[in-house]
Amino acid sequence: MSVSSRIDQALNTAVTQASAAGCPPRLAEALHYSVFPGGARVRPRLCLAVAGACGDDAPALADAAAAAIELLHCASLVHDDLPCFDDAPLRRGKPSVHKAFGERLAVLVGDAMIVLAFQTLARGGTAHPERLVPLLLTIGESVGMPLGIAAGQAWECEPRVSLSDYHNAKTGSLFVAACVAGAQAAGADPAPWRGVGECLGEAYQVADDLRDALCDVDELGKPVQRDAQLGRPSAVEELGVDGAVQRLRDLVAAAVAQVPVCPGAEALKALIAGESARILPKELASRKP
Amino acid sequence: MSVSSRIDQALNTAVTQASAAGCPPRLAEALHYSVFPGGARVRPRLCLAVAGACGDDAPALADAAAAAIELLHCASLVHDDLPCFDDAPLRRGKPSVHKAFGERLAVLVGDAMIVLAFQTLARGGTAHPERLVPLLLTIGESVGMPLGIAAGQAWECEPRVSLSDYHNAKTGSLFVAACVAGAQAAGADPAPWRGVGECLGEAYQVADDLRDALCDVDELGKPVQRDAQLGRPSAVEELGVDGAVQRLRDLVAAAVAQVPVCPGAEALKALIAGESARILPKELASRKP
Repeated sequence: MSVSSRIDQALNTAVTQASAAGCPPRLAEALHYSVFPGGARVRPRLCLAVAGACGDDAPALADAAAAAIELLHCASLVHDDLPCFDDAPLRRGKPSVHKAFGERLAVLVGDAMIVLAFQTLARGGTAHPERLVPLLLTIGESVGMPLGIAAGQAWECEPRVSLSDYHNAKTGSLFVAACVAGAQAAGADPAPWRGVGECLGEAYQVADDLRDALCDVDELGKPVQRDAQLGRPSAVEELGVDGAVQRLRDLVAAAVAQVPVCPGAEALKALIAGESARILPKELASRKP
Repeated sequence: MSVSSRIDQALNTAVTQASAAGCPPRLAEALHYSVFPGGARVRPRLCLAVAGACGDDAPALADAAAAAIELLHCASLVHDDLPCFDDAPLRRGKPSVHKAFGERLAVLVGDAMIVLAFQTLARGGTAHPERLVPLLLTIGESVGMPLGIAAGQAWECEPRVSLSDYHNAKTGSLFVAACVAGAQAAGADPAPWRGVGECLGEAYQVADDLRDALCDVDELGKPVQRDAQLGRPSAVEELGVDGAVQRLRDLVAAAVAQVPVCPGAEALKALIAGESARILPKELASRKP
């Protein structure tokens, strides 16, 4: 089965279980709406790619880790879009969840997706309970406190913030988790994968800044030039477009250089290179380095 | 160590880990504020009481389950108090979290407490990984979809709602989890404990309705007579005060009758009886049945 099909199937199973008999119908609808159709599914694809590179000897557990990571990402998007944060009207080319279902269901479906992520991990871990504790801790750390997504978002409520702490927590942490969890699900040593995830997380943040600055709303599926409007620092503001593109290429090269010796190392390196072209705005992707 | 000390220590450990170096300071402050000082800690005390009745052969795991359940309860209170839900100004005798820290930190600290609950379970489960999967599923089900707290709250967003579905999900589910998880943490058969939790959850809901109708704001620590103001159905409205008190006594008796044969059955039955007097409004607690 292709990686995309595995992710869709794992997410579909989780969403179906959560929407079983007795569920309030609009909450079930909001859950499906929050998860499907997805964005690029970058994080779960990375998780499965690392699991594959490490031998993927427990694919059901890798699928569960990938789905959990994507559910947590979706939860963070739904809560970030709330009126008290970004008040975003659009997400993935359609009305944001609070616009479509109201603020209360947006809060609740975000909460329920966080819970569902851990339920999904638990269900996937029945055959490998000894791998479950480290996986739960990896994924928990990446979204909670002190250094996960919730903490990253909370830096927006502080009078002073270090930009790297903010980005590491808000974006980088889930890329680190995707790599580390992929290795852990496959029973491999997770240590070398942390650095790979850190570089890819930072590369993704740079690409995100470039897309925000250069894409139009149709290509992005959400409002553009938000960084400039909200006065947020960005790699484009700091380095210019060419400098940001170079920074992204350096980060991808650093990630590839850190991939440890493993059964599928070469295929993974090729995938990372391809992915890094794909996440650039269209007008930049064809430029020669 | 007393049950209260065990709960406080487990919660304190979790909150301290979450607030470690690198955490945004106001988020750490909001987490501590959301958890301490607690309310009556009814759910974690029930969890530890059941674990104790079942032999409590893995106390670190029972403590983790109890702390996880209390963290999830605290998370649900913080999110329920948000302006888009109850817009509650007071909780446990002090300003609600969104009043004290703003709406954004209230959303984020609720999210972080859900994550922390599962991290706490994982940390407590390292010595008993085989007990962890059923515990995660029990606790996940009680707070997520289709039948947990998030689903219960979401019934408020539906045009039609069955009152028992609403109360079972919003209040009963975490009492069931407290009983079932207490047994699971101690390696006992959880099946008989579900009915105990269902009766106690319903009894607690009736007591809550009585307190809302009869207490003053100082005794309750939050606004009173909200049920009547918000047009919510309640046991007092349905049965009158005396009828509601009788209903509560019948439910407690049914819970006690379902306690299975176990090492600490008699102590648990005495505790349930004492607890049921404690949760009544003061003016009713001294009445003879």
